[in-house]
Amino acid sequence: MVTQARHPFDPISPEEIKLAVRILEAAFPGVELRYKRIDLNEPIKNDVLPYIEAERLRRPLPSPPARLLYTLFHRLDTGAFYKAVLNADKRTIVYAKELPREVQGPIDPDEITEIEELCMRHPAVLAEIEKLQLPAGVAVCNDPWMYGTDNETESRRLFQCFMYLVEVDHPQNNHYSLPCKFSPVFDGLTHELVRMDYLPGGPDSETTQTQPWKPVKAIQYTHDLLDEPVRTDLKPYIVQQPEGPSYTADGNSIYWQKWRFRLGFNIREGLVLYNITYDNRNVFYRLAVSEMTVPYGDPRAPYHRKQAFDVGDTGFGMNANQLSLGCDCLGHIKYFDGYRNDCKGNPVQLKNVICMHEQDNGLQHKHTNYRTGAATVVRNRQLVLQMICTVANYEYIFAYIFDQAGNVELEVRATGILSTVPFDNENGQTHMFSFRIDPAIDGFKNTVYYEDSVPMPEDDSNPWLVGYTTESTVMNKASTANTSVDRNRVFKIRNDTINNPITYKPVAYKLQTAPSQMLLVNKNALGYRRAEFATKPIWVTKYQDDELYAAGEFTNQSRRAEGVETWVQRKDNTENEDVVLWHTFGLTHNPRIEDFPVMPMERVSVMLKPDGFFTKNPALDVPQSTQTFNKSTLHPETSGACCSPSARSGSGKAKLYKRID
Amino acid sequence: MVTQARHPFDPISPEEIKLAVRILEAAFPGVELRYKRIDLNEPIKNDVLPYIEAERLRRPLPSPPARLLYTLFHRLDTGAFYKAVLNADKRTIVYAKELPREVQGPIDPDEITEIEELCMRHPAVLAEIEKLQLPAGVAVCNDPWMYGTDNETESRRLFQCFMYLVEVDHPQNNHYSLPCKFSPVFDGLTHELVRMDYLPGGPDSETTQTQPWKPVKAIQYTHDLLDEPVRTDLKPYIVQQPEGPSYTADGNSIYWQKWRFRLGFNIREGLVLYNITYDNRNVFYRLAVSEMTVPYGDPRAPYHRKQAFDVGDTGFGMNANQLSLGCDCLGHIKYFDGYRNDCKGNPVQLKNVICMHEQDNGLQHKHTNYRTGAATVVRNRQLVLQMICTVANYEYIFAYIFDQAGNVELEVRATGILSTVPFDNENGQTHMFSFRIDPAIDGFKNTVYYEDSVPMPEDDSNPWLVGYTTESTVMNKASTANTSVDRNRVFKIRNDTINNPITYKPVAYKLQTAPSQMLLVNKNALGYRRAEFATKPIWVTKYQDDELYAAGEFTNQSRRAEGVETWVQRKDNTENEDVVLWHTFGLTHNPRIEDFPVMPMERVSVMLKPDGFFTKNPALDVPQSTQTFNKSTLHPETSGACCSPSARSGSGKAKLYKRID
Repeated sequence: MVTQARHPFDPISPEEIKLAVRILEAAFPGVELRYKRIDLNEPIKNDVLPYIEAERLRRPLPSPPARLLYTLFHRLDTGAFYKAVLNADKRTIVYAKELPREVQGPIDPDEITEIEELCMRHPAVLAEIEKLQLPAGVAVCNDPWMYGTDNETESRRLFQCFMYLVEVDHPQNNHYSLPCKFSPVFDGLTHELVRMDYLPGGPDSETTQTQPWKPVKAIQYTHDLLDEPVRTDLKPYIVQQPEGPSYTADGNSIYWQKWRFRLGFNIREGLVLYNITYDNRNVFYRLAVSEMTVPYGDPRAPYHRKQAFDVGDTGFGMNANQLSLGCDCLGHIKYFDGYRNDCKGNPVQLKNVICMHEQDNGLQHKHTNYRTGAATVVRNRQLVLQMICTVANYEYIFAYIFDQAGNVELEVRATGILSTVPFDNENGQTHMFSFRIDPAIDGFKNTVYYEDSVPMPEDDSNPWLVGYTTESTVMNKASTANTSVDRNRVFKIRNDTINNPITYKPVAYKLQTAPSQMLLVNKNALGYRRAEFATKPIWVTKYQDDELYAAGEFTNQSRRAEGVETWVQRKDNTENEDVVLWHTFGLTHNPRIEDFPVMPMERVSVMLKPDGFFTKNPALDVPQSTQTFNKSTLHPETSGACCSPSARSGSGKAKLYKRID
Repeated sequence: MVTQARHPFDPISPEEIKLAVRILEAAFPGVELRYKRIDLNEPIKNDVLPYIEAERLRRPLPSPPARLLYTLFHRLDTGAFYKAVLNADKRTIVYAKELPREVQGPIDPDEITEIEELCMRHPAVLAEIEKLQLPAGVAVCNDPWMYGTDNETESRRLFQCFMYLVEVDHPQNNHYSLPCKFSPVFDGLTHELVRMDYLPGGPDSETTQTQPWKPVKAIQYTHDLLDEPVRTDLKPYIVQQPEGPSYTADGNSIYWQKWRFRLGFNIREGLVLYNITYDNRNVFYRLAVSEMTVPYGDPRAPYHRKQAFDVGDTGFGMNANQLSLGCDCLGHIKYFDGYRNDCKGNPVQLKNVICMHEQDNGLQHKHTNYRTGAATVVRNRQLVLQMICTVANYEYIFAYIFDQAGNVELEVRATGILSTVPFDNENGQTHMFSFRIDPAIDGFKNTVYYEDSVPMPEDDSNPWLVGYTTESTVMNKASTANTSVDRNRVFKIRNDTINNPITYKPVAYKLQTAPSQMLLVNKNALGYRRAEFATKPIWVTKYQDDELYAAGEFTNQSRRAEGVETWVQRKDNTENEDVVLWHTFGLTHNPRIEDFPVMPMERVSVMLKPDGFFTKNPALDVPQSTQTFNKSTLHPETSGACCSPSARSGSGKAKLYKRID
């Protein structure tokens, strides 16, 4: 009864976490293990394809692919760090390997708690706190940060603790408003204090010793602690679905408006979508935000090492918020849970980490026949899958948004609290995301190309000099490309073997990119080599199992990436092949005063749109938008309506004004 | 009782239209006039500022500025075309001038009807129709188009009629699906047939004579005429505001969440916003979409002349749809009417041409304290002002969206039916909009500058090579600028005389541009000179009355623009001056098969965001998002909930999983 049948794309279950522990304990008898990660290992793609194709075609199912589990753990006797992949069906170890000393695994919650508590107990830290001469009601707390990298030899597992003052009378006091000027660095394994850093407060890296604190009020963000009253003129806005939502969920299998997909969840990427089909046609095999990096642009030590990889160093799944009804989502909501392990190998439930609901997004299409005044109006109903991640001070809100016209949007909102430093505001950061698109446009072999719009030449073909045309470039080898606003460059994914019956051209989807400033880090800096994925907006690689993460498997204190920048160098054929398209996009965030103490969201989005995939507008059959269905409310007229004869004189021409030119 | 007191920014009233006619008839006794346009003339800015400042400061109101009316008309005795500006208070003509012969006024609805009917009666057209040998139930109709320009000498007022077949059994038969290959050109004044064009159907401009029609079914878009059934699995989604909306409207004065502004409407631009303040601080004097141009990229005659200026040639106000409850907008809706004149000078009511409602746009800010699990969540409520314009085949949806964090967004959606041509799909078009921003950042003298994010040099200031910094460039003379994704260029508008009390820097707003491909027309083409505004994304000019339209006052058959490209050449000082910022953005639209027969909307948006205007996040005082307020619904679990002991084992650590790294 331990391992019930699970779909290949289902997230890990608590039983499977416990199974993994039993398998590993049997393999390391008498050795105490500290578990860092126990999660689903992606199924071998070639093994899973026959299974999902049989599902799609409603044929008898073949055996599912081997259910593999991914584990990272330390032997506490030797300190060695291991990766092992397990076969949950056979209850065996597929392979286990000791990783090189310089490889640091991701940070886990138990470890963070440990470091946080260690820091607060350490005599050197207590001595600094003593110097602050804090009044009653003010305490010190710390956020342990991934240490980052500034040399190629460091192999200790390090944490830099950023220290803050916090008033203790409310659970939402804003400690980020009161940063301290000392910052201890600890060895995460030996628990030794490596160094006490003092933080610069001026334009250069000069620092000073800890002085008695001159009391200053924290700038608060939570309503209880605001000086001003909250607004009272906001009226309720309620979404009702009296007949229920238009989606159905059978476990993690979701159906909505001709879309069908499987919802995945893992500790590293959080929300993942698998096997996306529309009207039973394959569209995408897998979509996920594969990595992100946030290099801070502050040149002063120790800030130069602040470069978080929020997927690889920690994990969006790990950091996903427990969402609550009526707060994080509006309307008719379904929630999904996840599971992680703790350091002892126990399963920990992550409740409500993903929410699903519908939303109305205004009009999808409209046309008014000006001769008759008759209009066809279709609204844009959407399905939203949302996850919110808190990475210490900062929040990212990820949403996949499906619509009825065949579009899939990835929307990212950045909010939360800026990482502050003593005395002056934080220098800017770039937030660089890697959206990994594993396409399946009517099949699993696809080709990526880009199309530019360019003026026609000044010749006989263009006598009036107004013509423009398109130029296509096929990315037939694993390679990179730039976006181009000036050429209106559009990236497309096509299936060379299937022609659209109307256009006679290969069926395709296009990627509507978010052209963004790339990494501002100098190419000779370690931070550049660690995050090469963020130096080009477009990467195309040939699919290989285990190539999921743009900056490689182990990013914490990495010295260089082993991700897309490495895989493109194989120069694999990527024409009519199992290809993966990686899009790097992001935000350059130069903080505004309006971003304090908590930041109004900055939104960035990319979209996947059919382009020759269907034979016409796929939303044509969405019902007409009517008052019977939508039940809107007319605002009552408060002032006297205009009833002068002249106003009425126009009404006989009610249709005429719709005549247009 | 004819002219009641109206606010300087109120749209024209039917009484004022009639007043204008009386003034002009008195001035041209015995002469029959054909009225093309009677509308509000913008008040003189220097005269209106004391008035609106007194309103804002709640001081006694000075006399309002002169109420001016803008009129265009023909003398039917001489054919001369006049512009006259009238003073409605004094019932006098401020000036009236006969315009040069080559100046063509905009197209008006009565004229379009005239041409359309003339075309259908003309023997040459009837002869072509005869050749088609149409079966019963199929008729011919035509869309008269602005003729465009391909030489510098044409001074006739011309219309090119594009002919279509249409089945007559339904008011929404899609005639654009069945274009004909003949296209007569008429003189709009003499009503003479100028030429019968035959449209090319192949790659070059070669044409053929009209042949008997080979029946083919139209591709329909309206639900009644679709072959397939409409979807039945879309469930109602109802927005309720049981306590009413959060906005109040006193005439055209709107209040919402610290925002206050006056809603304007005119025939040319349609929706205009005036005197936008936040918390009683000036932000913008006037916002409007000042022009747009749609050059088609098809080099074949006569398509080379297809270049619509949908503001100047016709008018968004003229073409605005009569919106209806539950169809075009969802929720609690207030509608606003407008008025236009007909050719006889009668007022014509344009009912429900603007709608206003609130919407929920997900989260505005959130932060979870990972130590305590306590979260502050604020949703993003928005106020939307919407107008939908039908320009023959095509639709544009314009929305100004206000939020609670001080942002104003202009969203444009393009939908409707593509302009089709015989045999093959239409070549692409670019849709270029000019957003005219007349700022008033804490006062009416402002400065525009741009800020780039650039890597720091490789020197001692940047030892780890990770630093970046910003570079500012002040646009201190009337001039243009490019957007730059690679430098993350941000345009800002500041008030040099007022410092933010926290940052000690001038208060400012920024323009979040939509970097777009500019005009693809060759610079030696007439279409380039007519639309120079669309060749650069950013223009800064010094304010002058009557400089409202990016491509100039008269665009119909214009030979060159007299707009921003002319005004920047004055090289006026624009530092700490009354400046206007013009942003050109758009869509390059290479049609997809999914855009037929009616196009799923393409969305493009630009945003004005505070950047050092406030002292902190202005949405801090928006109430916490709660279930009590939002009343969301939990999706019932259909399958057995997971109640295994292991699942429960995690619940004791409910807080711990929120610890993050």
